[in-house]
Amino acid sequence: MNITAEQMRFWSPEVRELEPYIPGEQPKIQNILKLNTNENPYPPSPKVVEAIQKVLVNGADALRLYPDPDASELKQAIAQQQKVPVENVFVGNGSDEVLAHIFKAFFVQDLPLLYADITYSFYPVYSQFFGVKTKVLPLNDNFEIVIADYKQPNGGIIITNPNAPTSIALGLAEIQEVLQSNPNSVVVIDEAYVDFGAESAVSLVEKYENLVVCQTTSKSRSLAGLRVGYAIAQPHLIAALEAVKNSFNSYPIDRFAIAAAVASFEDQAYFEAQNAKVIASREKLVNELSDLGFKVLPSSANFIFATLASKDAGELANELREQGVIVRYFNKPRINQYLRITIGTEVQNQRLVETLKVILAKS
Amino acid sequence: MNITAEQMRFWSPEVRELEPYIPGEQPKIQNILKLNTNENPYPPSPKVVEAIQKVLVNGADALRLYPDPDASELKQAIAQQQKVPVENVFVGNGSDEVLAHIFKAFFVQDLPLLYADITYSFYPVYSQFFGVKTKVLPLNDNFEIVIADYKQPNGGIIITNPNAPTSIALGLAEIQEVLQSNPNSVVVIDEAYVDFGAESAVSLVEKYENLVVCQTTSKSRSLAGLRVGYAIAQPHLIAALEAVKNSFNSYPIDRFAIAAAVASFEDQAYFEAQNAKVIASREKLVNELSDLGFKVLPSSANFIFATLASKDAGELANELREQGVIVRYFNKPRINQYLRITIGTEVQNQRLVETLKVILAKS
Repeated sequence: MNITAEQMRFWSPEVRELEPYIPGEQPKIQNILKLNTNENPYPPSPKVVEAIQKVLVNGADALRLYPDPDASELKQAIAQQQKVPVENVFVGNGSDEVLAHIFKAFFVQDLPLLYADITYSFYPVYSQFFGVKTKVLPLNDNFEIVIADYKQPNGGIIITNPNAPTSIALGLAEIQEVLQSNPNSVVVIDEAYVDFGAESAVSLVEKYENLVVCQTTSKSRSLAGLRVGYAIAQPHLIAALEAVKNSFNSYPIDRFAIAAAVASFEDQAYFEAQNAKVIASREKLVNELSDLGFKVLPSSANFIFATLASKDAGELANELREQGVIVRYFNKPRINQYLRITIGTEVQNQRLVETLKVILAKS
Repeated sequence: MNITAEQMRFWSPEVRELEPYIPGEQPKIQNILKLNTNENPYPPSPKVVEAIQKVLVNGADALRLYPDPDASELKQAIAQQQKVPVENVFVGNGSDEVLAHIFKAFFVQDLPLLYADITYSFYPVYSQFFGVKTKVLPLNDNFEIVIADYKQPNGGIIITNPNAPTSIALGLAEIQEVLQSNPNSVVVIDEAYVDFGAESAVSLVEKYENLVVCQTTSKSRSLAGLRVGYAIAQPHLIAALEAVKNSFNSYPIDRFAIAAAVASFEDQAYFEAQNAKVIASREKLVNELSDLGFKVLPSSANFIFATLASKDAGELANELREQGVIVRYFNKPRINQYLRITIGTEVQNQRLVETLKVILAKS
């Protein structure tokens, strides 16, 4: 829509300058193969559906009463699964909200926040929103993080691990190097995709007073529809997140989301089996795409980042879409010849491969 | 917990100063009569439970896929019920989140935001959080808003109508006077309790380009457990809210909350019947409390604000709590001799009255 300058006078001046995040498309068309927003192709644990049914049995009170503003039951379930004290857990309305609170709680500093040039594209948006100064550090030519760059003066560091959209993971030794080099800055490891093959930094929380690890139930727990994210850190950092959260929205997680997420964290066997399935499918898909001539970056995530020398990536994304297959294409410097493709079920991956074969045969 | 000065160095300086909101207690004890957070004593429409069951039938995809980031279906249902174009609707994770976005979108200005000294206690919290300048305007001795005060230079106005915790409503003529006197400021009418007997300003949205009306499903729709709030305004104001929302969290409302709220907005008959029941119970309770010697302010809400000359309100709140009845007591200037009491079912209100009789007989 067009907003006139006269109408603009009602907006806060800083809001006039915002460049909001654009989420991956959620198409409403049937029979589309949706490999564009890194959702899990498998449903969550059957215990999740049971838990929601159980909330409904107590119907009346479940809905008419506010949820626990602290979501204590959920924090407890996360603490148990992650093997940390409950005081180390913060929860929010998806990891996007948790990240927003992290930016406000730690990164509004005189010195700039450091993050990679190719990483989660919400970071610059949060930074602008909260007035966080930033310094963007280029990945190397292999799209890897250059640890030495993270040893300069800063007001905070955020690293996605495995990184998105590159899918490449950093080892814990390198993360420890960053933590040790920055004793006065908060270092956030955003682990949205960690369960698909990277090492979690949660094991380092006890040792490092400057570490915050952020995770989500949207990917490895198949609960994107429910919006539950969390952070693990020492209590003096959790306290800052609670202060921010309670200055913004007291009750961010509803009763169904709390019950469903608790059930998910309690079913460790399902969780491990499902992640193993996604990892196995990924390895198979990487081989098949390599056979088609794709260069695929080494992935520790539930998606791959792939490029084809013989075909423009933007064109390829469009031709896939014409065939009903949606992948994510970023028209941005350095990565505009890559496609980010979510790992689907075996059947879905085969449809992708067959569709690619048809398109490439024509080219 | 105690946080040392050394640990504090990790917090953003402005976050060290925050004084977060403290929500009404959600006690986990059984058999407590909870009249402290203005929840509806009746369950939501049975259609709400049916709608959630229906989401569960499509189980897998419902949970593993992100919800519609725009919650279009929900906006459509609200638009229809409120008789406004869908372009006039914004939705969020409870009206607390909607209000937070409102403060950021409109009130970060050179001139101060105007609001009453006795009103929703989250307003000063949001103001501090977003760096909004404020000017607090005292209610008169009858706890009414003084319209003349809202004609001074300002960067925005927010009025709770009916006001909380006073329960007193303002008429639309007075609201129009405020709107007309402030053609360059956004005027927000926070109508969390409007369905219990006040006139909504939604009917004025078409006429006033500076009006935002905020409502919630937590009170009159018995959906506090689900976290859905909304705002109605002209599209040039909705656009500012969308820019803020998409700079903070793309998917704030989960699939169950969307489905449940849609079902609620579609069942107008249940909604009207339930509100009528609460209003009738309120009138009866007001009479009974008056008979016990209480002075009760004229309420257009699902709660009352009452004082007793013969007994300290803080002590009375404590004695009620000892008997298992929790009401809200604010230990603040001007209102520290009042109790805010949520309207319960007939049976609950009788328990309150009987408990009060026992306590007062002893005093």
